[in-house]
Amino acid sequence: MEKVFVRDLVADQQIDTPFLISAMEVRQKRNGEDFLALVLSDRTGEIRAVLWDGVAEATHEVSTGDYALVSGKVTLFQDRLQVTAYRLHRLEPNDVDEADFVPATTGDVRKMWQELLDAVARIQEPLLRRLLEEILGDERIAERFRRCPAAKRHHHVFRGGLLEHTLSLVRLCEIVAEHYPSLNRDLLVAGAVLHDFGKLEELRFDLEFDYSDEGQLVGHIVMAASYLDRQMREMGFDDQLRIRVLHMVVSHHGEEQFGSPRKPMTPEAVALHYLDMLDSRMEMVRAALERDEDREGSFTSWVYSLERHIFKGSAE
Amino acid sequence: MEKVFVRDLVADQQIDTPFLISAMEVRQKRNGEDFLALVLSDRTGEIRAVLWDGVAEATHEVSTGDYALVSGKVTLFQDRLQVTAYRLHRLEPNDVDEADFVPATTGDVRKMWQELLDAVARIQEPLLRRLLEEILGDERIAERFRRCPAAKRHHHVFRGGLLEHTLSLVRLCEIVAEHYPSLNRDLLVAGAVLHDFGKLEELRFDLEFDYSDEGQLVGHIVMAASYLDRQMREMGFDDQLRIRVLHMVVSHHGEEQFGSPRKPMTPEAVALHYLDMLDSRMEMVRAALERDEDREGSFTSWVYSLERHIFKGSAE
Amino acid sequence: MEKVFVRDLVADQQIDTPFLISAMEVRQKRNGEDFLALVLSDRTGEIRAVLWDGVAEATHEVSTGDYALVSGKVTLFQDRLQVTAYRLHRLEPNDVDEADFVPATTGDVRKMWQELLDAVARIQEPLLRRLLEEILGDERIAERFRRCPAAKRHHHVFRGGLLEHTLSLVRLCEIVAEHYPSLNRDLLVAGAVLHDFGKLEELRFDLEFDYSDEGQLVGHIVMAASYLDRQMREMGFDDQLRIRVLHMVVSHHGEEQFGSPRKPMTPEAVALHYLDMLDSRMEMVRAALERDEDREGSFTSWVYSLERHIFKGSAE
Amino acid sequence: MEKVFVRDLVADQQIDTPFLISAMEVRQKRNGEDFLALVLSDRTGEIRAVLWDGVAEATHEVSTGDYALVSGKVTLFQDRLQVTAYRLHRLEPNDVDEADFVPATTGDVRKMWQELLDAVARIQEPLLRRLLEEILGDERIAERFRRCPAAKRHHHVFRGGLLEHTLSLVRLCEIVAEHYPSLNRDLLVAGAVLHDFGKLEELRFDLEFDYSDEGQLVGHIVMAASYLDRQMREMGFDDQLRIRVLHMVVSHHGEEQFGSPRKPMTPEAVALHYLDMLDSRMEMVRAALERDEDREGSFTSWVYSLERHIFKGSAE
Amino acid sequence: MEKVFVRDLVADQQIDTPFLISAMEVRQKRNGEDFLALVLSDRTGEIRAVLWDGVAEATHEVSTGDYALVSGKVTLFQDRLQVTAYRLHRLEPNDVDEADFVPATTGDVRKMWQELLDAVARIQEPLLRRLLEEILGDERIAERFRRCPAAKRHHHVFRGGLLEHTLSLVRLCEIVAEHYPSLNRDLLVAGAVLHDFGKLEELRFDLEFDYSDEGQLVGHIVMAASYLDRQMREMGFDDQLRIRVLHMVVSHHGEEQFGSPRKPMTPEAVALHYLDMLDSRMEMVRAALERDEDREGSFTSWVYSLERHIFKGSAE
Amino acid sequence: MEKVFVRDLVADQQIDTPFLISAMEVRQKRNGEDFLALVLSDRTGEIRAVLWDGVAEATHEVSTGDYALVSGKVTLFQDRLQVTAYRLHRLEPNDVDEADFVPATTGDVRKMWQELLDAVARIQEPLLRRLLEEILGDERIAERFRRCPAAKRHHHVFRGGLLEHTLSLVRLCEIVAEHYPSLNRDLLVAGAVLHDFGKLEELRFDLEFDYSDEGQLVGHIVMAASYLDRQMREMGFDDQLRIRVLHMVVSHHGEEQFGSPRKPMTPEAVALHYLDMLDSRMEMVRAALERDEDREGSFTSWVYSLERHIFKGSAE
Repeated sequence: MEKVFVRDLVADQQIDTPFLISAMEVRQKRNGEDFLALVLSDRTGEIRAVLWDGVAEATHEVSTGDYALVSGKVTLFQDRLQVTAYRLHRLEPNDVDEADFVPATTGDVRKMWQELLDAVARIQEPLLRRLLEEILGDERIAERFRRCPAAKRHHHVFRGGLLEHTLSLVRLCEIVAEHYPSLNRDLLVAGAVLHDFGKLEELRFDLEFDYSDEGQLVGHIVMAASYLDRQMREMGFDDQLRIRVLHMVVSHHGEEQFGSPRKPMTPEAVALHYLDMLDSRMEMVRAALERDEDREGSFTSWVYSLERHIFKGSAE
Repeated sequence: MEKVFVRDLVADQQIDTPFLISAMEVRQKRNGEDFLALVLSDRTGEIRAVLWDGVAEATHEVSTGDYALVSGKVTLFQDRLQVTAYRLHRLEPNDVDEADFVPATTGDVRKMWQELLDAVARIQEPLLRRLLEEILGDERIAERFRRCPAAKRHHHVFRGGLLEHTLSLVRLCEIVAEHYPSLNRDLLVAGAVLHDFGKLEELRFDLEFDYSDEGQLVGHIVMAASYLDRQMREMGFDDQLRIRVLHMVVSHHGEEQFGSPRKPMTPEAVALHYLDMLDSRMEMVRAALERDEDREGSFTSWVYSLERHIFKGSAE
Repeated sequence: MEKVFVRDLVADQQIDTPFLISAMEVRQKRNGEDFLALVLSDRTGEIRAVLWDGVAEATHEVSTGDYALVSGKVTLFQDRLQVTAYRLHRLEPNDVDEADFVPATTGDVRKMWQELLDAVARIQEPLLRRLLEEILGDERIAERFRRCPAAKRHHHVFRGGLLEHTLSLVRLCEIVAEHYPSLNRDLLVAGAVLHDFGKLEELRFDLEFDYSDEGQLVGHIVMAASYLDRQMREMGFDDQLRIRVLHMVVSHHGEEQFGSPRKPMTPEAVALHYLDMLDSRMEMVRAALERDEDREGSFTSWVYSLERHIFKGSAE
Repeated sequence: MEKVFVRDLVADQQIDTPFLISAMEVRQKRNGEDFLALVLSDRTGEIRAVLWDGVAEATHEVSTGDYALVSGKVTLFQDRLQVTAYRLHRLEPNDVDEADFVPATTGDVRKMWQELLDAVARIQEPLLRRLLEEILGDERIAERFRRCPAAKRHHHVFRGGLLEHTLSLVRLCEIVAEHYPSLNRDLLVAGAVLHDFGKLEELRFDLEFDYSDEGQLVGHIVMAASYLDRQMREMGFDDQLRIRVLHMVVSHHGEEQFGSPRKPMTPEAVALHYLDMLDSRMEMVRAALERDEDREGSFTSWVYSLERHIFKGSAE
Repeated sequence: MEKVFVRDLVADQQIDTPFLISAMEVRQKRNGEDFLALVLSDRTGEIRAVLWDGVAEATHEVSTGDYALVSGKVTLFQDRLQVTAYRLHRLEPNDVDEADFVPATTGDVRKMWQELLDAVARIQEPLLRRLLEEILGDERIAERFRRCPAAKRHHHVFRGGLLEHTLSLVRLCEIVAEHYPSLNRDLLVAGAVLHDFGKLEELRFDLEFDYSDEGQLVGHIVMAASYLDRQMREMGFDDQLRIRVLHMVVSHHGEEQFGSPRKPMTPEAVALHYLDMLDSRMEMVRAALERDEDREGSFTSWVYSLERHIFKGSAE
Repeated sequence: MEKVFVRDLVADQQIDTPFLISAMEVRQKRNGEDFLALVLSDRTGEIRAVLWDGVAEATHEVSTGDYALVSGKVTLFQDRLQVTAYRLHRLEPNDVDEADFVPATTGDVRKMWQELLDAVARIQEPLLRRLLEEILGDERIAERFRRCPAAKRHHHVFRGGLLEHTLSLVRLCEIVAEHYPSLNRDLLVAGAVLHDFGKLEELRFDLEFDYSDEGQLVGHIVMAASYLDRQMREMGFDDQLRIRVLHMVVSHHGEEQFGSPRKPMTPEAVALHYLDMLDSRMEMVRAALERDEDREGSFTSWVYSLERHIFKGSAE
C-alpha cells in the first residue's frame, strides 16, 4: 500500500493509495441516482473525486475525517484533474503514516524538544526554571507542544511549528541577552518559552488546523495568562516576578490593535516582541520563497500575511 | 474642628481645619533658610501652601499622604490664593471624615449594594448565581467594590463609582433582556456585574486614584478573566458556560484597539458592550454638564474623554 | 397556480409556477441559434434558467423585472440545479402575491404601525407630536414607511424592516428615558422615529432593494435633515427645538467617518446613537444565527457587516 | 482719538485710545479691596490690563464685548507688557472704525463682490444663474457674505475671507473648466460660489469668530444643503440639476472623515474638491510665511492646520 | 493580413489574423495526448484559445510574448467565446502594427511632445531650462517618454499615458502660476515635467505593463531623485535650487503613507501635489465613464482606484 | 577655569565658569534701561540668567552660540534658580572641553570606530567591502560619523550616537546572520553600516542637534540612496547588488507611513528592519530608565517616542 501524493498525480493514472477524506457529500446525477462527491487530501494538497457506484456501501464504510484506501483513476475534467474512484476502504490511523497527511516540521522533533529542555535547564532563577520544567514535564502538554503548529495561518503552519518557532526564539533571546547585558536573561528566555504556549489550547490540530471554541472566544493570550497566573500563585512566586512573566505574555503582540491588551513596558517584553516579530516574519519570507520556487518572475506572488511580494532575484 | 473646603476659601480668611497633604517639599528661602512648600487638598480641589517657620518640627510631624490640621491664613500671591500656614498637626484617618477628602458617589452606597445583591438573587442559573454570591460575599472584595471608582479618569471617577456604574448597567441589562427575548438574561446580568470587576485590583483608590503595578502591566480584563477562570473551574462550571462568561469580560471593550483581545461574538457580549458604552458615555455627558454649569456659553469646554463639546442649551 | 419556492426545488421536478425575472439575455448556441439565459427569483433565493426554443415569442412576452409563470423542468448542470424552461407567460403584479417575491418582516405590519402611532401619541411636547403626526399621517409617507427596508444590506434588509427597526428603537428609547431621568423623553422618542426616515427616499424597494440617485449622491441624513428643517420652520418651531431635532438626525451615525457630519453633542443624541447601534447589531446577530442554523460548526460563517463570526454554541 | 495698536505698544507709554474689551473680571487685592483685571484687544493682538481704582464705576460703564476708550500707561510686569488703566470710557460701534478691531481681507471688498457677480452673470444655465442671483441679491446674505471669514481657524480667518476664497475658487474653476472641456462649466462655477455658503450661518463673526449653535450642532454642509434644496424646489429645478448641485455642496470635503456624508461622484464635484483643497492650502502656506516673516531660520514654526513646517528659504 | 480585434469576434467566425500570445501551456487531453491552451490578446481585450493538433510544431514556432498569425474558428464553450486554432504562424514586430496590441493615447504623440518642449522653452531660469532640455533631448529618454504609461494601473494606463498626463499637468501649472503670482512659475513647471519621470525606469511597457525589479524595490520617487541629484550636481546647481527641485519630486504624493518620504513644504510642492491629484483623478473619472458607457444604470460599476461609483446621469 | 555644571548649581553660589550661550535678548527694565536676558547651557541642562549692567559691552563681546566665561551668582527667583551675571567673557572652542557642552556617548569613540572598520573588513564580497571602505575611509565622512547623533530626538540623541547605534546593529546582524543561515551575511552587515548613513547630512550637530534644510526637505533615506546609487554605479556594481543595497536603505523604516517608500521585500531588508527597531527601542528604554532613576514611583514618566511608561520595578 504505497503512498502516492496528490502533488504527483497525472491524468490517466490508476491509483490504489491512502488519502484523508476532507469532505464528502451525496449528490444526485441527472437521472436522479445518487453519487458521491469527495475531496481527498494529503500533506501535499487536495483533489476532487467522484464515486458513481456503490454509494450506500461507501457512506457506510467511511466519513469525513477518516483515512481511506482509494482505488480509482485520475481523469481530466474541465481542465482540472480529478479522481474517479471505484472503491473506498476505511483505514485506521495506525494503518497509515500520519506524517503523510499533515504538513510537518522538517526538523527532528525529538532533538528540538531536548534542546528546548536544555535551554530551560540553563535558567538560573530557581522558581522560573521550576515553572517551566513542570509545564514542559507535564506529558499531556509536552505531547501537544511537539505537534502544535505556531498558527492557523500566517507562519509555521505545520506539525511541530510551535516547537520550531519557540526554539528559534529561545536561541535568539539567549544571544540577544548577551548583546544587551542589562536584560534579565532568565526572564527573557522564560518569556520566549511561554509566549505562544496558550496556542496549545487555542488551536485544534489533529488533522486540520483550526481554532477551538475557547481559542476563538477567549484567545491564547488570556488563556495562557490565566493558566500561568494560577500556576505561579500556587508555586509561591512573589508579585514582582509573577507580574513580569504575565506582562511578557500579555504584551508580546506589541500593540492593542494586534490583540495585546498592554504594550511592552519592561526591557524584556520589548525585546521579546521584536524578536518574535523577526522570527515569525523570517519564516513567512522563507515559506513564501519555497512555495514560489518553480514560478517564473523576479517576485513571489502576493504574500497576504506580509502584505507584499518577496523578491526572488532578477532573471534579467 | 469644622471642615472648611478648598472651594470655599477666600483671601484673608483665618483657617484651622483638616486637609490631606498631597505634596510636601523643603525648599530654601533667598537667605538660605529652609521653608516648607505644600499642596493641600480635599474632595473639592487643591491649594498651595507655605510654612515659613518650624520646618523641622513640621517634617517630623507629617508626611505626604497624611491628614493634617492646618492653622494659617489664606493669602493672595501672584493673583492666586495660597495658604500661609503657621502650624501643622497630624491627624489619624479616624479623626476625619474621609468622605471630605475624596470625591464620592452621591448615591446611598448601602442601598446600591443591596440592590446589586437583589439583582444577583434574581439570577435563575444556580452556578452563575453562586459564583456572583461568593464573589460579592467575600468581605474583602465587597469592601473594595463599594469604594472603587469606575476608572482612573474618563467616567465615574469617584468613590463608589464602580458600584454606581455596575448597578446602572445591571438594570439596563435587565430591561433590555426583556426587550430582546432571545437574550440569555442570566448570562447578560452576570456579565454586567463582572465586566469591570478586575478594576478592584487594577486601580489604587485609597486616597488618590491610580493604577496598581499589576493593573498597568496586565490590565483589568486579563486580571478578571484569570480570577474568574480559576473560580469557575473550581466550582465545576461546564466549558460552555465558563467560556461564555469569560468571553463577555474579555470582549466588553468591543474592539482590539480598545484593549479587548476579542470582539463580542455572542448576543449577550454584543448587548453588554453597547450598554456599557451607553452608560459610561451618559455619565461623561452628565459630569461634563455639571462641571460646566456656571460657565458662560452654549457649550461645555472640550471634553477629552468624548473628544467633543457638549451642548448646554442656547442663551441666544 | 400554486407557488413553488426556489429553496424547495429538486432535480427532475416539473414546475409550473410564478417567478420574478431578475435577469434575461439572448445568447447564441454553438450552432449559432439564439437561446435565452435567465435568472428567476423569489423571496427564498434565485436560480438560473434557459429557454431553448421560442425565444422570439418569449422576449416579446416578458422583460427583466416582470413576473412570469414558468413551465419547465429542474435539471442538474455542472453540479448545480437550473431550470430548463418550456414556456414563459407574463403575469401582472395583481396575479401574484408580492409577498412571495420580496423578503418581508415576520411581524404584523398593521399592528406595528399602530404601535408606532401610539408611541407618538404619548409625546407631551405639542409641536413635536404634531410634527410626527403630520409626517406619519401623510399617506404617501405611511405607505412607504410600512414597506421600506432599514438598509440595502447589513440589517433589517426586508420589507417592513425600517418599521420593525424604528419601532424597536422607539421602545428602547422609552425605557432608557425612564432609566436616565435627565433625558428629555419626548425629544429622544422623536429622534428614534425620525432617525432613518430619510431612507424612504434614499432607497428604492419596489422589487429589488437599491439606492435612488438622490440617495446615492446626497444621502438619507441630508435628505431627512433638509425635509425636517423645512417642515419645522413652517410649523414655527423655535430654533432650540428645531436644532436639537436636526442634530439627532445629523449625528446618529456617531462619527464623521460613518457619514455623520457631526458627533452627538446632546444627551439625547448620545443615547440615540448607542441604542441605534444596539438594535441594528442585535438584528445582524439574529439574522446571522438564523441564516446559519443548519450549517455545521460552532460558529456562523463570516458576517461581513460585523467583521466577525458569531458563536452558535459548542457541539463539543 | 487716534488708534494705537497693541502691536506697537512700548513700556512706559501713555495711552488714550480705543480697545475692544475681550475679558473683564473683578478680583481682590491682598488687602481685600477690589480691582479689575481685563484683556484688551484689537486686530493686531491682545494685552492684559489692570484698573486699581474706580472699579464700581468702570463695571457700570463697560462690559465684556464693548469698545472702550482706555486711558492709562504701558508697564512691564514679570517680563511682559501690560496696561495700567486709569479710566475706561465706553464707546459705541459707530465711534470706532471696526476694521481696527477685527482682522480683514486686504482686498477691495466692493471690487471682489462685483467680480463675483460678474462671474455669476457669465453662467449660461438660466435656472442656475437665477438661483445664484437671488441668493447674492438678498441684501442680508450679501452683507454677511462680504464680512464672513472662510473659517473659524485654519484658512482665510479674517473679515471678507469667505468672499476672497470664494472668488479665487470661482476663477480657478473657470480656467480649469476650459482645460477639461468635458466639465460642465456652469455647474462647476455654481458649486464654487455655493460650496461654503452655509458658513454665513455656521459662523458668528461680529467681533470674535466662533460657531453659532446651529453651526456647531448641524454644520454648514447640512445647513447649506437644506437651504438650497428648499430654494431649488421652489424655483422648479428638475431633480437632475437639483441633485447635482446638492451633491457638490455635500461632497466638497472629499471624504466622510472630513465631514462630507458622500464622496465626490460627478466630474464637477471631483474637480471642485481638489480646487478647494488647492486654494485653502495655498492660503495657509501664504499666511504661515507672512506670520513668520521676521523669525530666524529656514522654516516657519509648526503650522497646525497643515501639520508641517513651511520652507522659507535657506539662509545658509 | 487584416487585423480583426478581440472585441469584435462572434461565434462561428473564421479568422486568420494576428494576435499577441499572452500565455501558452501544453496540457493533456483525456486520452493522454497533448494539446495547447493559449491566451490571445490585442489592445481591445483577450480570449482563450486551444490548438488540438500540431502541438509540437506550434511550440517550436512560437512562445509566450510573440506575435502570431492565428488561423482558426471562434466557438462557444461553456457560455464563453474561445478560439479553436488550426495553425499558428510566428510574426516579427515589424510584421504587425504594434499600436493594435497595446492600448495607447488617442492624442497625437508628436504634437504633444512638441508642446512639452515648447513649455520647457518658456522656462526663464537658465539652469532649470537646460536641465529639462538635456533630459528630454536624450533620445533614449525621449523615446521611452513618448511610449510610457503613467501607471501600471489606476490612471493613464496606456502607451503615451505619461506624456499625456505630464503635458496636461504642465498646462495646469502654467495657468495656476498665473492665478497665484507668488508661485515660482519656472520651478512649478519644471516640477510638473519631472514629477513622474522616474516611471520611465520603474515600469516595463514593451508589451504588458509591469514594474521593473528596480521599480518594485526602490520606486520611481527615489530613482528620479537619485538621477536628478546627480545631474544637477554635475550641472552646478546651487543647493537651494537643487533641493527645491528634489523636494517637489520627493513630496508629490502628498503624504508618507502614499509613498512620499516628505510632505510638500514649499508653495510649489503644495500646488504640484493638488494639481497632480486633480489631473489623475479627472482621468480616472473620464476612463470610468467611458468604460461604462453601454452599461445600464445611473452609476458606473465600482471604480477601485477611486473607491466609489461615478454618476453617469439619471435615466429616471 | 574649572567647569561647574548646571545640574550642580545651588542657591547663593558664586560662579566663574564656562557656559554655552543658547539664547540672548536685550530687554527693558521698568525704568526703561536695557538689561540682558540669557539662557546658559551645558550638557547637563540649561538655566536662565540676567545681566543688569554693562549690556553694551556684553552684546559686543558675545552672541548666541558662543561659549562664555560667566562670573556671577546663583539666585532664587519665583521658586526657580537663575544666574545673576556680573560679567561675560567670550571663549573660543579651543578654550573649553566641548564634551562638557553637548551630550555624548559614554563609549570609547576611537575603539568603536575601529570595531566598525573590523566588521567591514570581515565582509567577503569584494565590491561591497570596497564600497564601505571608501565611504568610511573618506576623512570628512569619518569625522562626521564619529560625532553625529542617531536622531534629532527619540534615540541615541548624543554625540557619537550614530556610531554607537550603527555598531550595535552591525553586531546584532552578525549574530543573527549566523542564526538564519539563508541570510546573505555580507549584504546584511553592509545594510547595517549604511542604513542611517544619510543622517550625516540630514542632521546638523555642531552645537545643537537639528535638521539641515536638505534633511528636512529631502530626508536621509533619499539622500543616502542618491549618494550610494552614484557611488555604486561608478564602482561598477551589477544591477542586482546595487538594487539590493538601495532597497535595504529605502525600506528600513518598514512601512510607507514611517517614511520608507517601499516595504522590506528581501530577507536581508526584513531582518535589518526588525533589528533596527530592536536596537533603537532598547536604547529608548535604557535612556528612559536612566532619566527617571531618581524619580519616585514604579513607572517612568511618559516616554513620548514609545507612547508608554516603562516599568522600573515595584516599590510595593
